[in-house]
Amino acid sequence: VALVGASSDPSSGGYAYAAHLLQDFKGRFYFVNPRTKEVLGVRTYPSLLDVPGEVDYVICCLPAGRVLPLLEECRQKGVKLIHLFTARMAETGKEEGERLEREVVEGARRLGLRVLGPNCMGLYNPEVGLTYGYHFPLEPGPVGGIFQSGGLSTDFVHYGSLRGLRFSRVVSYGNGRDLDETELLRYFGWHPSTRVVAMYVEGVRDGRRFAEALREVAARKPVVVLKGGRGRTGERAVRSHTASVAGRREVWRGVLRWAGAVEVETFEELLDQVVAFTFLPPCAGRRVAVLGGGGGKSVLSADVWEEEGFELPDLSPSLRERLRERCPGEWDWVGNPVDFSILQERPMMPEEWLELMEESGDFDFFVFNLTEDDPLPREVWRFWMEEQVNGLLRFRGRGRPLLAVVPSAGLDAGKLSEWRWGDIGELRRRMVEGGVPVFPSPERAARALRRFVDYWERRFRRETAWVRPPSCSSGS
Amino acid sequence: VALVGASSDPSSGGYAYAAHLLQDFKGRFYFVNPRTKEVLGVRTYPSLLDVPGEVDYVICCLPAGRVLPLLEECRQKGVKLIHLFTARMAETGKEEGERLEREVVEGARRLGLRVLGPNCMGLYNPEVGLTYGYHFPLEPGPVGGIFQSGGLSTDFVHYGSLRGLRFSRVVSYGNGRDLDETELLRYFGWHPSTRVVAMYVEGVRDGRRFAEALREVAARKPVVVLKGGRGRTGERAVRSHTASVAGRREVWRGVLRWAGAVEVETFEELLDQVVAFTFLPPCAGRRVAVLGGGGGKSVLSADVWEEEGFELPDLSPSLRERLRERCPGEWDWVGNPVDFSILQERPMMPEEWLELMEESGDFDFFVFNLTEDDPLPREVWRFWMEEQVNGLLRFRGRGRPLLAVVPSAGLDAGKLSEWRWGDIGELRRRMVEGGVPVFPSPERAARALRRFVDYWERRFRRETAWVRPPSCSSGS
Repeated sequence: VALVGASSDPSSGGYAYAAHLLQDFKGRFYFVNPRTKEVLGVRTYPSLLDVPGEVDYVICCLPAGRVLPLLEECRQKGVKLIHLFTARMAETGKEEGERLEREVVEGARRLGLRVLGPNCMGLYNPEVGLTYGYHFPLEPGPVGGIFQSGGLSTDFVHYGSLRGLRFSRVVSYGNGRDLDETELLRYFGWHPSTRVVAMYVEGVRDGRRFAEALREVAARKPVVVLKGGRGRTGERAVRSHTASVAGRREVWRGVLRWAGAVEVETFEELLDQVVAFTFLPPCAGRRVAVLGGGGGKSVLSADVWEEEGFELPDLSPSLRERLRERCPGEWDWVGNPVDFSILQERPMMPEEWLELMEESGDFDFFVFNLTEDDPLPREVWRFWMEEQVNGLLRFRGRGRPLLAVVPSAGLDAGKLSEWRWGDIGELRRRMVEGGVPVFPSPERAARALRRFVDYWERRFRRETAWVRPPSCSSGS
Repeated sequence: VALVGASSDPSSGGYAYAAHLLQDFKGRFYFVNPRTKEVLGVRTYPSLLDVPGEVDYVICCLPAGRVLPLLEECRQKGVKLIHLFTARMAETGKEEGERLEREVVEGARRLGLRVLGPNCMGLYNPEVGLTYGYHFPLEPGPVGGIFQSGGLSTDFVHYGSLRGLRFSRVVSYGNGRDLDETELLRYFGWHPSTRVVAMYVEGVRDGRRFAEALREVAARKPVVVLKGGRGRTGERAVRSHTASVAGRREVWRGVLRWAGAVEVETFEELLDQVVAFTFLPPCAGRRVAVLGGGGGKSVLSADVWEEEGFELPDLSPSLRERLRERCPGEWDWVGNPVDFSILQERPMMPEEWLELMEESGDFDFFVFNLTEDDPLPREVWRFWMEEQVNGLLRFRGRGRPLLAVVPSAGLDAGKLSEWRWGDIGELRRRMVEGGVPVFPSPERAARALRRFVDYWERRFRRETAWVRPPSCSSGS
């Protein structure tokens, strides 16, 4: 990797990429800058041609006007891909910017060089330690990302990693003038260790080509798509951001549905959806068991899960029969949701509840509301919280999806001295590391699970259609 | 205050109330328990009648079967109000529970005693230091709360205080057999230092009485209502939680609309809505200026604000004229939302942007997306973040609503070693303490502001109707 335009100015991109290469990159890298001797203690070369070793990949932080001459140097050096962090091309809306972008991309193609960008953050590949932000995890994982916005891609890595996501590669592709969303999508469709693909897209170069690629990839792995620029103002903002044409909302919705992609509307939904696909085993059933939490939380959970199309079957007579002995005071009173606050003597521990409900066969998946509202002193509170978390981690869903709902307080450094928040954070981390995904509210969990079950239902139906005669597959 | 059933068992309610009285209460209090000599180092009295001083308020943690005999002692002692933390009455769904609850309430009425509960957490009144959970702020504020669920009331205080809310009183009233939602609502309607009322209600005793009270109070101050038990399962859960009849969703919606209350559907929306009403000056305009954040965030913000019915006017020619000199590279390119990431040299600081847009008169309120996704080293990142936050705090909206959007990472103790989250938390706290409310996502902000503007529009229209002849007021 060669960084052209490496800089000692800490507020520049040329500095940020230098720092990230230095800190994270496992391969060889070179800094290029004719006006300095060194950057961050690493010697710089006056030009790309002076670099002693081979260069596959160039990160270009030069101003727009200085990109064209670099292309010829890239060809001589045998570079395969140039990433243009460089911006201020077509997205300025000015003719000279548009012309320059066209010239760069056409010039590169003539020289046998591929271009990523311009106006983007480039590649995050934890396998080789290529990063473009602080606090990017170096441990790889199954999530691929295709982002037309560099900032959102950074947020996706930051906030996603706190939710337990780990990434195969994330690509910020900006104006996408050469390597575009369709080609990237096909790459992730093929890429073996990518199991889920997240996309943020503002506009596409070729709608038909994109739709077909999307349909192919979505049949093999979940593709979650967040479309930016849905309204009138968004369309205007899309033009000045990545020089894209936003396209009509209804057309987009239709294409995503036809292709079998999973559409989300907000960044938070994108995270939730990828968390669901990453952590949970496939499931097409809608009978949900909700446990934990007090009465109010149980009531509101019931409302939102039902509003998202799920069913909360009541405890069956045979299940109640098994409860009668263990919970003599509540066996005929408690229901689904299982409101833990009415089980005053805690005759059964959370794990036993999960097991009993799982064994009944009445539920397709399990949602656990972790109660933190008890007015108890820390020791007792902590004991009960740990009892719940340990139970979840031992139960693990037994092959069925299991997820936890723990409200998020938002980070507030001023309050971290209160034991409550530190303890909840630690327990949340333990769940996530133990494979139990955590959602910050019942409604966010329920919305993600609705799309999750919809996806698997469609896929099961389609796959069944391939192996059975068509007449048997309809409605199955 | 007398706590009857004070206990040394740390997992009991009798212990929790004792601990909270001891830690927070400013007045005199007594513990009653015939079976112990002391609780938490405080002497106990064998019965309420043995208490030496006057008692206005009794917190009862006795089991259900031992409440009736206490009532007569209360009468002899001149007690005005008894709070029954005691549960297992009508909500069990059993005839003996229902009968007992009726006997207790009727008995109390005969003795001239009012009852709060049963099955509730009681009163939180920071003015006198009466609390019922750990980490309840003792500094009073303008928010009143009426909660049929004790757990949700606790969450409201915990999560609300992290959002900057402070409370006048919060009441958890449980089964509400005597003091019910309507009477509490009238109290808060009158209570001078309560400026906003939050309600969580599962069912009401007398629909017409409630609707009329709601209409009266909502005309004077915002009343935000979260209805629990909207669906089939929720209705079942409501019965076993507070023995309430949930009522049909459509009827509820109609009543809330008729009364001019503000309906929300989730706990998060309840928090957001109360934050908006508490922090922001009245506003009935829908022209929003969105600033800060990178391109992707700007695009998605534009989408959600527009989808919630707001307008994002583009920068006017005269405003651009003023920009021309200061931002020669961007004056004709940048728009509303103002994408800070394209202003590469940062020719104008955030505060100047806010001032310029405010002076234009084109915008009713201001939304600031605090960008934290820059790939910068900590010092530069921190400088730029502080520049933004300081600008917001100096600007303060100049009489118009100003709010910030900062994504919430969720508390994750394992990650707090990364400077990013600690720093963001600190900056968030500074904004909240400086009077700038913070929302965790554009969509949550936009939804809260839509209801906020709807409320003030309705109120302005109604109030205008009173002072002008009716013919002039329609549609104004």
